[in-house]
Amino acid sequence: MTIISRYGDPDAALAVHNETIALQLAHRSVRKFTARPVTDEQLAAVVAAAQSAATSSNLQAWSVIAVRDPDRKARLAALANGQQFINESSVFLVWVVDLSRARRLADRAGTPLDGTDYLETTIIGFVDTALAAQNAVIAAESLGLGTVYVGAMRNHPEEVAAELALPPRAVAAFGLAIGSPDPSENAGIKPRLPREAVLHREQYRSEVADAYLPAYDERLAAYNTRFGLPGNWSERVVTRLAGPQSLSGRHRLRDQLARLGLPSR
Amino acid sequence: MTIISRYGDPDAALAVHNETIALQLAHRSVRKFTARPVTDEQLAAVVAAAQSAATSSNLQAWSVIAVRDPDRKARLAALANGQQFINESSVFLVWVVDLSRARRLADRAGTPLDGTDYLETTIIGFVDTALAAQNAVIAAESLGLGTVYVGAMRNHPEEVAAELALPPRAVAAFGLAIGSPDPSENAGIKPRLPREAVLHREQYRSEVADAYLPAYDERLAAYNTRFGLPGNWSERVVTRLAGPQSLSGRHRLRDQLARLGLPSR
Repeated sequence: MTIISRYGDPDAALAVHNETIALQLAHRSVRKFTARPVTDEQLAAVVAAAQSAATSSNLQAWSVIAVRDPDRKARLAALANGQQFINESSVFLVWVVDLSRARRLADRAGTPLDGTDYLETTIIGFVDTALAAQNAVIAAESLGLGTVYVGAMRNHPEEVAAELALPPRAVAAFGLAIGSPDPSENAGIKPRLPREAVLHREQYRSEVADAYLPAYDERLAAYNTRFGLPGNWSERVVTRLAGPQSLSGRHRLRDQLARLGLPSR
Repeated sequence: MTIISRYGDPDAALAVHNETIALQLAHRSVRKFTARPVTDEQLAAVVAAAQSAATSSNLQAWSVIAVRDPDRKARLAALANGQQFINESSVFLVWVVDLSRARRLADRAGTPLDGTDYLETTIIGFVDTALAAQNAVIAAESLGLGTVYVGAMRNHPEEVAAELALPPRAVAAFGLAIGSPDPSENAGIKPRLPREAVLHREQYRSEVADAYLPAYDERLAAYNTRFGLPGNWSERVVTRLAGPQSLSGRHRLRDQLARLGLPSR
């Protein structure tokens, strides 16, 4: 049962189940692809699924750039900490928070558009983009494709914007490498926190939720050992968020977004 | 064919298709629910699907509060511009950007945790939360349930945090009302922008993409007329983002997040 792998817990079970949920539970990030291409027809279906996600006030505040050119993929990979799977993917999708379209509509109408200056609107953009991209991931997986998100598109957002010719008020939120999963990849379904650690009833109760964290540290350490990865989840979280030096240069994001036209005030 | 409704275009077609994508294409927001409850077993499956979404560095920087108490739902509805469907939903999920868990882990380890002060980390939280919530939506719809996102949870984030007893560094990102769709609701599949308006090849080309906007304005106006709603998409986008006065009070979000422990600098 996939649910056992999903929680790394031999006692995990679900009383309610279907094929869609089974597909979701089986998600893993794929970082090794075969040469088999993602077709334009598959891409059209994936994008239609993305567009079907909810969007705040129907703003549809995102765009997506499909990159297939090997040279461009290589340049984007270099901007994303050299992640090799970007080059190996059939298509690399860059998901863009796009408030430039609204700006152009306002310009044509000759009206002001100052609402894009606020953090709220930046957040709307990132949330809209993420909802769409996650629908794309599910659609791609339903077609037998594999995906991996690339948050490192935010390591050098100004260089990424220049590479993709993004207009002001458009910012790469993250990438998504898509391709046919190489069956030789040594990877599995990574266990997540026990449900009780993230699901609260009526109000947030940290003492109840956090009681489940030690068991998770053990389960994830056992999983990581299988794949030759280092251990403890709690330690990794604290290390990852220790300070500006642990953010891969992204502690500068606010100033960079401002220069790209999203001051987020 | 659902794809025709999704684009409001009688010529729309997909060469690639399956049941999962059909489910995604048929998405609509449901704002009218029957009294039939969402069971705890269904909720467990929905949350397991949410947890299966990708998460940046496996931080799992979110929590979710399941609200069933009618009085609490009513108070949250009052904080969300009085949206009645919150009261009618069987369960109202509040999705929480949660960096408080990392803070508690750091406290236990006696180490600093300054990385949560940056906009990048706020963004990670909102993106992680949105990816999870969208998986929840797909899972719920696969079970025959209906959902609607409630961005108005950000209208009064401090009051929402108090109602849900959120600790510092935890912020409600949005709500999600879930229930059994009332078949009497007069609603349909809202057309989205033509694919060519949002999907770019290799680089962003606004003149190519924007050429598809006038057709969309016509299609959405035709759809809205069917449901007695006012018209033009372009005008609505510009009005919605005109300035701070059009953001339902959310132009204050940055200061509010700072007071809630996420300074987003």
